[in-house]
Amino acid sequence: MKVSQVLHMNGGVGEASYANNSLVQQQVLSLTKSIREEAITSLYCSAYPNSLAIADLGCSSGPNTLLVVSEFIKVVEKLCRELNHESPEYKVFLNDLPGNDFNNIFRSLDNFKKRLHGETETEMDQCYISGVPGSFYGRIFPNQSLHFVHSSYSLMWLSKVPENVNNNKGNIYMARTSPSNVLTAYYNQFQSDFSLFLKCRAKEVVEGGRMILTFLGRKSDKKYSKECCYIWELMAIALNDMVLQGTIKEEELDTFNIPQYTPSPSEVKLEVLKEGSFTIDRLGVSEVNWNALDQWNALACESQMSESLGDGAYNVMQCMRAVSEPLLVRHFGESIIDELFDRYQEILVDRMSKEKTKFVNVTVVLTRNP
Amino acid sequence: MKVSQVLHMNGGVGEASYANNSLVQQQVLSLTKSIREEAITSLYCSAYPNSLAIADLGCSSGPNTLLVVSEFIKVVEKLCRELNHESPEYKVFLNDLPGNDFNNIFRSLDNFKKRLHGETETEMDQCYISGVPGSFYGRIFPNQSLHFVHSSYSLMWLSKVPENVNNNKGNIYMARTSPSNVLTAYYNQFQSDFSLFLKCRAKEVVEGGRMILTFLGRKSDKKYSKECCYIWELMAIALNDMVLQGTIKEEELDTFNIPQYTPSPSEVKLEVLKEGSFTIDRLGVSEVNWNALDQWNALACESQMSESLGDGAYNVMQCMRAVSEPLLVRHFGESIIDELFDRYQEILVDRMSKEKTKFVNVTVVLTRNP
Repeated sequence: MKVSQVLHMNGGVGEASYANNSLVQQQVLSLTKSIREEAITSLYCSAYPNSLAIADLGCSSGPNTLLVVSEFIKVVEKLCRELNHESPEYKVFLNDLPGNDFNNIFRSLDNFKKRLHGETETEMDQCYISGVPGSFYGRIFPNQSLHFVHSSYSLMWLSKVPENVNNNKGNIYMARTSPSNVLTAYYNQFQSDFSLFLKCRAKEVVEGGRMILTFLGRKSDKKYSKECCYIWELMAIALNDMVLQGTIKEEELDTFNIPQYTPSPSEVKLEVLKEGSFTIDRLGVSEVNWNALDQWNALACESQMSESLGDGAYNVMQCMRAVSEPLLVRHFGESIIDELFDRYQEILVDRMSKEKTKFVNVTVVLTRNP
Repeated sequence: MKVSQVLHMNGGVGEASYANNSLVQQQVLSLTKSIREEAITSLYCSAYPNSLAIADLGCSSGPNTLLVVSEFIKVVEKLCRELNHESPEYKVFLNDLPGNDFNNIFRSLDNFKKRLHGETETEMDQCYISGVPGSFYGRIFPNQSLHFVHSSYSLMWLSKVPENVNNNKGNIYMARTSPSNVLTAYYNQFQSDFSLFLKCRAKEVVEGGRMILTFLGRKSDKKYSKECCYIWELMAIALNDMVLQGTIKEEELDTFNIPQYTPSPSEVKLEVLKEGSFTIDRLGVSEVNWNALDQWNALACESQMSESLGDGAYNVMQCMRAVSEPLLVRHFGESIIDELFDRYQEILVDRMSKEKTKFVNVTVVLTRNP
């Protein structure tokens, strides 16, 4: 299976849509905001270009899609005002796999530009936004055509499920109980995918151009670390229960594996150094709660706590459903989905009441070498 | 009403979709093929660029969408083989209004590239295709970023319904019975829209770049000439019948006017000369039957003729439905649509059995002046 033909976030704007279940991704973006502002400022001030081309890879379709673009333009516009420069031309490329709901994005662009005009007091008639469908594990942009590349929570998706992981019985991702060949296969797939990604971008990004990448990842050196694998382990529990119950066949479960890899900072670093076209300006780790609303829940009084715990598990379930439903439907069929996510939610309620559950994010800032 | 917020060809791939009802547009493309080949050849041979940017404005979503792009690339690839040149990089921009079904296009690109690879024996990994939503009556591309602009059967759509046409009673487009202020208002809107179009493209097209535009138009100097207005007059008859019957209110019909203008070659020429950035290489007229299948019907034996006449009217009705349904629904509501097109088809059956009915196309080839 080629991931590029199946993977997409749930489309539309319904209850199970990605558009309505992408708060975690939004929090990650806000955690990395100052890093982007710094990179954008240094990029603009290094050459004062009168045309800036920026790309968001894995832009998805929802409230997060244009956040980084808007931020980018606002930072540059502020610099232009301070320096008394004319506004540059903005070429904005929104990339995602062909299954992404681009129609939804395109229909929001008029309002987006109006809002941006209001916020920057600059007419947005020199801001050219286009959609670029295709896998970033291949060339998607012309030679030396980009100044700034951004990607958040997309690069952990591999180009395909690693080969030879058929003995990963009972698991759907790397886990404590995965045989070592499975861990190696996953890591090899990450290495070949990420190095291909870097090779392609190296051709597309101009000298001095910046790239900011945030992966869902881990801090630990252990590939099967709980901090990155637990969320899928709990889904595997639900699936195994359904095998016991006879709703899913055992061999169906055994042949399902999630095409993701959650790298550590040093694994990211190693690939960048090996490929050699980019210099690492920054490499760091941040954390965000599984339930993105937890920050607000901390302010809630105790009587509301149990209620919000249920909501929390529901939010996490919906978030995971929005990103994984097309993969699951493709493998198991439509009919198991509702039951699977009901069971998953029950498991999440239990675990989230007993332990602190967080996603780990690895962010790297790169500059294209001369 | 801004046309850009309402107008789009019927989406999807159903019976009333544009994708399934765009044979006329396809025939027009095949009529103008040799003109394009000549322009592409002269463009490529004037500079042998190693990167070529081409845009299709009003690309729609269906079997015609990538026809011109495919033709363009095949012509250039053939020249490259003959001249022993390396293939250039292709930057392809597909433009249409934000209501267009871009998702449908994007999901077909992998197969498109595979087919093109088969036909040209060149890997299409240097062919970058993107979608650019927005009205071409405004800037949609960066400065001097295009070598070749194509648009077929889109530029007759105006940016809005002309103002002060409220006395165009009983008509929905220019007609013999239209008051002279209505004809003038339509013409003025065409002039201001087309000159704005030329001004915008003049900034976007590089020196020596080519532009090929085909309008649904007319040969006659008379704006209300039957050759361009009859198709809408027949729809107006159906609407007037529904007013008499009480299904539609009279004032509803009186306030509905189609935002199109079907220019003559000399009207097109005048605007190009006035704007001044482009030289006219060619200006010509062609014709295509309302029923695109007529060519094949001519080969059918007589016993099949009456049957194919009914089919013919059905095809024309579906073609007109595919392009006008969103406008009609917006003004009259969903509920009148099926009846309207049933009546329209009956009228078409009658008229098409009695007279030869053709669309007139005006095609102009332009080169950007130094």
